[in-house]
Amino acid sequence: MNPTASGPLLTLSRRTRRTPFTDRVNAAGVKAYSIYNHMLLPTVFESLEADYHHLKRHVQVWDVACERQVEIRGPDAGRLAQWLTPRDLSSMADDQCFYTPMVDETGGMLNDPVTLRPGPDRYWVSIADSDMLLWIKGVATGMHLECDVTEPDVSPLAVQGPKADDLLARVFGDEVRSIRFFRFKRLPFADTTFVVARSGYSKQGGFEIYVEGSSYGEPLWDALFAAGGDLGVRAGGPNAIERIEGGLLSYGSDMTRENTPHECGLGRFCDTRDSFGCIGRDALLRMLSDGPSRQVRGIWIDGGPLPPCTEPWAVSAGDAYCGQVTSAAWSPDFERGVAIGMIDAAYWTPGTAVRVQTPDGERRGQVNTLPFGA
Amino acid sequence: MNPTASGPLLTLSRRTRRTPFTDRVNAAGVKAYSIYNHMLLPTVFESLEADYHHLKRHVQVWDVACERQVEIRGPDAGRLAQWLTPRDLSSMADDQCFYTPMVDETGGMLNDPVTLRPGPDRYWVSIADSDMLLWIKGVATGMHLECDVTEPDVSPLAVQGPKADDLLARVFGDEVRSIRFFRFKRLPFADTTFVVARSGYSKQGGFEIYVEGSSYGEPLWDALFAAGGDLGVRAGGPNAIERIEGGLLSYGSDMTRENTPHECGLGRFCDTRDSFGCIGRDALLRMLSDGPSRQVRGIWIDGGPLPPCTEPWAVSAGDAYCGQVTSAAWSPDFERGVAIGMIDAAYWTPGTAVRVQTPDGERRGQVNTLPFGA
Repeated sequence: MNPTASGPLLTLSRRTRRTPFTDRVNAAGVKAYSIYNHMLLPTVFESLEADYHHLKRHVQVWDVACERQVEIRGPDAGRLAQWLTPRDLSSMADDQCFYTPMVDETGGMLNDPVTLRPGPDRYWVSIADSDMLLWIKGVATGMHLECDVTEPDVSPLAVQGPKADDLLARVFGDEVRSIRFFRFKRLPFADTTFVVARSGYSKQGGFEIYVEGSSYGEPLWDALFAAGGDLGVRAGGPNAIERIEGGLLSYGSDMTRENTPHECGLGRFCDTRDSFGCIGRDALLRMLSDGPSRQVRGIWIDGGPLPPCTEPWAVSAGDAYCGQVTSAAWSPDFERGVAIGMIDAAYWTPGTAVRVQTPDGERRGQVNTLPFGA
Repeated sequence: MNPTASGPLLTLSRRTRRTPFTDRVNAAGVKAYSIYNHMLLPTVFESLEADYHHLKRHVQVWDVACERQVEIRGPDAGRLAQWLTPRDLSSMADDQCFYTPMVDETGGMLNDPVTLRPGPDRYWVSIADSDMLLWIKGVATGMHLECDVTEPDVSPLAVQGPKADDLLARVFGDEVRSIRFFRFKRLPFADTTFVVARSGYSKQGGFEIYVEGSSYGEPLWDALFAAGGDLGVRAGGPNAIERIEGGLLSYGSDMTRENTPHECGLGRFCDTRDSFGCIGRDALLRMLSDGPSRQVRGIWIDGGPLPPCTEPWAVSAGDAYCGQVTSAAWSPDFERGVAIGMIDAAYWTPGTAVRVQTPDGERRGQVNTLPFGA
């Protein structure tokens, strides 16, 4: 069950799209991929645990081109962008990355992208794993809006880890150090400029570079590795252990269309003013009056190494079913299993003792806040 | 590059969804998966070539649960279903499976599903690899239509190969023999009934059983294997060699949003009457006046075994670039490489000599009709 040791092979085709960085990723010795937005997402290089320790101490370059952009452009772009999310976009600054839950007409989560505005009347929706291009295009087509909805040639490359500032400053200059969290600057590289944001799918700090133009992918990768030898720079990817410790949710695993933003702990991103309109608002308001009956929590799991969580694991307390675990890993730093799951209201208080049905048998556990160790 | 021998591992999570058949597939010794509609699609059991020979001689059971259904239900269901495709649905019989290209407002292919009507005011769109749930929901939401768009608990299981009729008759009775091509019957199994259609992603004949209710998955799988021992029944999956020989296109590989139905050889499914309306109709009509400038063709490729085609391979004739190969395999039965690609009009006549740039070097080739050997 350890992806560094065995497991099924991945059959490749044009449909499992390569990225501008795939040749470099392969040369760096990638061992495993996932598929994300119909695209290769590198997941393991040395081993899940070795990658984890390195990420927490040094700096890694991640091919996250699979975080595709949906570009909305044209006179109705602003209207459509706001219609898509319960988060009020009117206060979004020009250099800001906005975490924007997006829901359907029933209030069910469709994706949890980051929205930014790289230019006037132009939005990028930087998506998690679902074809938001089709949703956004469908809504625009149904509403006869005046805007183009496309997938531009933009491939994010993440630089993550405690030495990310030092590495990026060597390639883009010291200006990167002054980029605030979830803000971006447009910085020069070769004969172009890239959106460089302080963001990323780890809690170790770092940046995401929105590489506009596939042909710049390898030159940027090479520049980062040439500059970072003494920083111990390595290829990496989103790390299952680190992101669970850090409480970073994964769309499709920890939340699906079956869940509302409030269940996912994202209620603070849902505007409820009377004047405010978006798809799903009425459904969200109805649910808000009662509050959610279950919510995302961390769960400590006792005992040794855990198999990957490839389907929900039932969680119980006493005789009652009280929720499910949706992501789990054994944490070397905490020397304990860490998990993310959806827990019923009567049991979601941190400290509640629970039992988790893993494929290897029942384990004792304890409800916790997210992130772990915070 | 041979998926039976080596290649990257696939990292599993809840997001790479299991199917009702996954435990049986694993027990049958699956070696490789692809991901299709965020779900596991078994691709290799013994080896790509051994699976191919078996499929052409015996009968296989395929977990194609990843052919998810989008259910459209309600008073506006018929109107919406027609709005989605340029194919006229008014002549679709109650027991008919309709191959229905679906395009966006620019006429670009979004998917090439099969549409059927399992009940009154109820449509199933049986999809290829893109989130058509989001497109269809988006259009319905934008147009304020009265219908529910959902993903029901329906998981197709395919029975393919020359002995498919014999095997299925043993489980569902001799009535299966009278099901015509791309027609279906509702047949009893245990305490329920399933839509059983004569269809499938091979040219060897066979059926797709729309398993409604995940709990029936393993009992049906087991019934098929119990009944088919002397027929040599085995677990299998869509076979890359056989489907290329048979000219079956793969959405995402052989066609994308960049292509029109006419480029994909699907012009006969596009209605052009004045009275007819669907998304993309105006764009398709504009293109129709000129005809496509490139179209899908078969391409023979000389020489020995071929690596998998994981990105388009350039095709040239003389000094000119004239298209690209998008799927390729070495065919044991033809003892020659077979490929599917998009070829420019000046070069698409069968017999035209071309050169194909494979990752292993340039090969000579020849344009052909599809399917091969027909």
